[in-house]
Amino acid sequence: MKNNVGKEIPDNYAEQYGLFKGELANIQEYKESSRTIIPVRPRDTKLLGSLKEAIEKTGLKDGMTISFHHHFREGDFVMNMVLKEIAAMGIKNLSIAPSSIANVHEPLIDHIKNGVVTNITSSGLRDKVGAAISEGIMENPVVIRSHGGRARAIATGDIHIDVAFLGAPSSDAYGNVNGIKGKATCGSLGYAMIDAKYADQVVVITDSLMPYPNTPISIPQTDVDFVVEVDAIGDPDGIAKGATRFTKNPKELLIAEYAAKVITHSPYYKNGFSFQTGTGGAALAVSRFLKEAMIKDGITASFALGGITNAMVELLEEGLVEKIIDVQDFDHPSAVSLGKNENHYEIDANMYASPLSKGSVINQLDTAILSALEIDTNFNVNVITGSDGVIRGASGGHSDTSAACKMSLVIAPLIRGRIPTIVEEVNTVVTPGSSIDVVVTEVGIAINPERQDLVEHFKALDVPQLTMKELQEKAYSIVDKPDAIKYGDKVVALIEYRDGSIIDVVRNV
Amino acid sequence: MKNNVGKEIPDNYAEQYGLFKGELANIQEYKESSRTIIPVRPRDTKLLGSLKEAIEKTGLKDGMTISFHHHFREGDFVMNMVLKEIAAMGIKNLSIAPSSIANVHEPLIDHIKNGVVTNITSSGLRDKVGAAISEGIMENPVVIRSHGGRARAIATGDIHIDVAFLGAPSSDAYGNVNGIKGKATCGSLGYAMIDAKYADQVVVITDSLMPYPNTPISIPQTDVDFVVEVDAIGDPDGIAKGATRFTKNPKELLIAEYAAKVITHSPYYKNGFSFQTGTGGAALAVSRFLKEAMIKDGITASFALGGITNAMVELLEEGLVEKIIDVQDFDHPSAVSLGKNENHYEIDANMYASPLSKGSVINQLDTAILSALEIDTNFNVNVITGSDGVIRGASGGHSDTSAACKMSLVIAPLIRGRIPTIVEEVNTVVTPGSSIDVVVTEVGIAINPERQDLVEHFKALDVPQLTMKELQEKAYSIVDKPDAIKYGDKVVALIEYRDGSIIDVVRNV
Repeated sequence: MKNNVGKEIPDNYAEQYGLFKGELANIQEYKESSRTIIPVRPRDTKLLGSLKEAIEKTGLKDGMTISFHHHFREGDFVMNMVLKEIAAMGIKNLSIAPSSIANVHEPLIDHIKNGVVTNITSSGLRDKVGAAISEGIMENPVVIRSHGGRARAIATGDIHIDVAFLGAPSSDAYGNVNGIKGKATCGSLGYAMIDAKYADQVVVITDSLMPYPNTPISIPQTDVDFVVEVDAIGDPDGIAKGATRFTKNPKELLIAEYAAKVITHSPYYKNGFSFQTGTGGAALAVSRFLKEAMIKDGITASFALGGITNAMVELLEEGLVEKIIDVQDFDHPSAVSLGKNENHYEIDANMYASPLSKGSVINQLDTAILSALEIDTNFNVNVITGSDGVIRGASGGHSDTSAACKMSLVIAPLIRGRIPTIVEEVNTVVTPGSSIDVVVTEVGIAINPERQDLVEHFKALDVPQLTMKELQEKAYSIVDKPDAIKYGDKVVALIEYRDGSIIDVVRNV
Repeated sequence: MKNNVGKEIPDNYAEQYGLFKGELANIQEYKESSRTIIPVRPRDTKLLGSLKEAIEKTGLKDGMTISFHHHFREGDFVMNMVLKEIAAMGIKNLSIAPSSIANVHEPLIDHIKNGVVTNITSSGLRDKVGAAISEGIMENPVVIRSHGGRARAIATGDIHIDVAFLGAPSSDAYGNVNGIKGKATCGSLGYAMIDAKYADQVVVITDSLMPYPNTPISIPQTDVDFVVEVDAIGDPDGIAKGATRFTKNPKELLIAEYAAKVITHSPYYKNGFSFQTGTGGAALAVSRFLKEAMIKDGITASFALGGITNAMVELLEEGLVEKIIDVQDFDHPSAVSLGKNENHYEIDANMYASPLSKGSVINQLDTAILSALEIDTNFNVNVITGSDGVIRGASGGHSDTSAACKMSLVIAPLIRGRIPTIVEEVNTVVTPGSSIDVVVTEVGIAINPERQDLVEHFKALDVPQLTMKELQEKAYSIVDKPDAIKYGDKVVALIEYRDGSIIDVVRNV
């Protein structure tokens, strides 16, 4: 069965999840999922002596679903620590639902091979774990969900978390948690907050036990069953790993300049506008150009959203951005800012991006700058599989933000090395072309013809304008058309659209 | 059928709600209740032109349950405003579930008589509304719930709120609400936060519309369906009405001195101890004496809890209390403090006091100072009906706090006017004697014999110690034994214990 972006979806998955039919086709009234609560009585204590004791007390058993958050990114110790303990206890056949999976989680491969983990849902897969999944080591396909889609899945009960194991930079013995104090501060705990609210049982794992009551409270004691103290939950350096500095690459600078021009000449650029940028070199450069324009034009933004970097914090501190709305921090200065600046505000993933909430912040967003591994002539975007067909990316907030904001920009170089970025058809569709308004490359921009208002508005813009077909042809004229990837028959990953329907599948390579 | 405090409960209510069997007899694992969500899409707006339009959009109809919060106390305009509009629209047979009802809600009497309101649950009833209910104007009894009991009832689904109408001191057009900005600041919105989380539909009513995003966020946009702007939601003077100043009444001062001695000589009085005080003259005086002792002894408290007054704020600012944990503010300085002091922290009613949460703050509380209309020789406390049997009080956090904290003090004069406070049997049991540890009067204290540890500990305490029987006899020796109240046969109110069972009923007078 073919879905709305022309992708063939095997019948069984199409029936189970539904076919992608368009951005808002599947947004319906629903009964929110809820948890089973074991009340904590006045004299009960939550602080336990070991992780093992906590796992035992939760009643975790074969076949259950456990979750983790990815706020420690490449510095996370928690998922490996917990799975090691669980494996040692002989528990098998678990579903894991971390908000994302990083390179550091390579031990997961053995847990899969040993039958400890038999189902995975995640925003993305990196490096060796991604390669192993793409090889087909799992019987069941990984379900790739966007950040908003994960929040939706938890709210609807598509993901029911039996036990959440949540690394806490600081917690008191009764489970009041924040990410701004402690040894391994990660700042916002936006993804963890959702798990804490919906999971039946929540185990907080901390290396910085604080006096009661630990405030501010990102995860409250009323969402926590047990607290365990360990030596270390994460490596602070790893949290900021991969965070990029201002680029000197001339191609990236040109892309950033074009993107900034699109934004500052758009109908949305006025006092009180709002934006989300990414973390790549070009995205940070956009922030720099945007900042210069805002100073020159005397314009301030009402809020900046997203995954937050120091570049955003600087805009806040300089008064160019009134507020930062923060679901995740990508570096240490951002985590520090969250702790000290009252206009830097933490929100959860549901409020950030869920399509089934009573209104997420992305719905109020003017413009978002997004990245891509590939973009095709229909504006469809791939952020999950490499040019070799191997899973190595993450869905993130891509499909969420682009669908909801008023003007989405995808920035990307025409080619990377010998590989074209603009292609006839992307290997894997994560974000449908209908969500993408402007594609920005170093040779010029392409405006989605569905946005005739923008085509009209940008007629006089001082940036080369091309069609996606022209961009793709330019790319193929520099490097050869890529050979088709030789996929196997096995479906190794389902790409869920944010509404829960299937927008694509990934097969083994 | 007689319950655990010897009260005769009519069979139908006993069967429907269960008989009170003891503080922790009914604390069981349960599936949390949840709401039906109508997702808000990217281009939807929530700001409507009128209250009437909002009521229509919610689909409110005969027989539904609506709720309000009581943070504006005697200054509340919202409940009267909404019920007037609903009555004009011809909607009937509503259940109302405000967190409490004040004198200012007198128009409710007509709505009851006209069949607009046919069921009520509330923490309390005051003045003319209480008198009318006690006369028997309703067919169905009012269900009196403690603050923690209400949070529990909402979490279990015993109260399912179809539409919550929440007055917001400030809100943006997308429903981000706080109580510290705007024209009628009330500070904490702890009771409203619960309604917003569980109600199917939430209408925010504000007189101070703020730019998006309005932060800090007490009620997030993800809990709000519609926003309505009106001229005024409340009278700031009314919010603080009834807040008391330091007493000069020698009897109250003596009670306060004895209470402070009990606390400062208790095993709990050490660095990091915690307490909750009330708002009456004697309670405020306890804070004063406590403060003097803490300075003298070099002791600081980790937190003060509760309904907060300026007396607590002063302790915070002087560094004697490290944090204030705030579910409701009783005066303007407290609301201001919440807005500016990061160690003054807002929590919801579930976290404050629900017996079915994963651990409420009262479970961590060392000592609480509570008031009483009557206390009997079994330590049972009445805070709901006057000596004439008419409902005029409120359950509040009385039964919650006293059950959960490590040492509960009830402070009360032996007699009030010609009426004994210490009696053989209270008119109405709200809090079971098993929850009360020490009764403090101006002639001395009585320690609950169930607390032999305290009896032992306080042997050398420089305060007269009596039994409750002796206190009651002293009271009856000053004023006559009160005549028995001539109740009718009709049950006009059910007194729910915090766990949902029936601890007493009130009949018409």
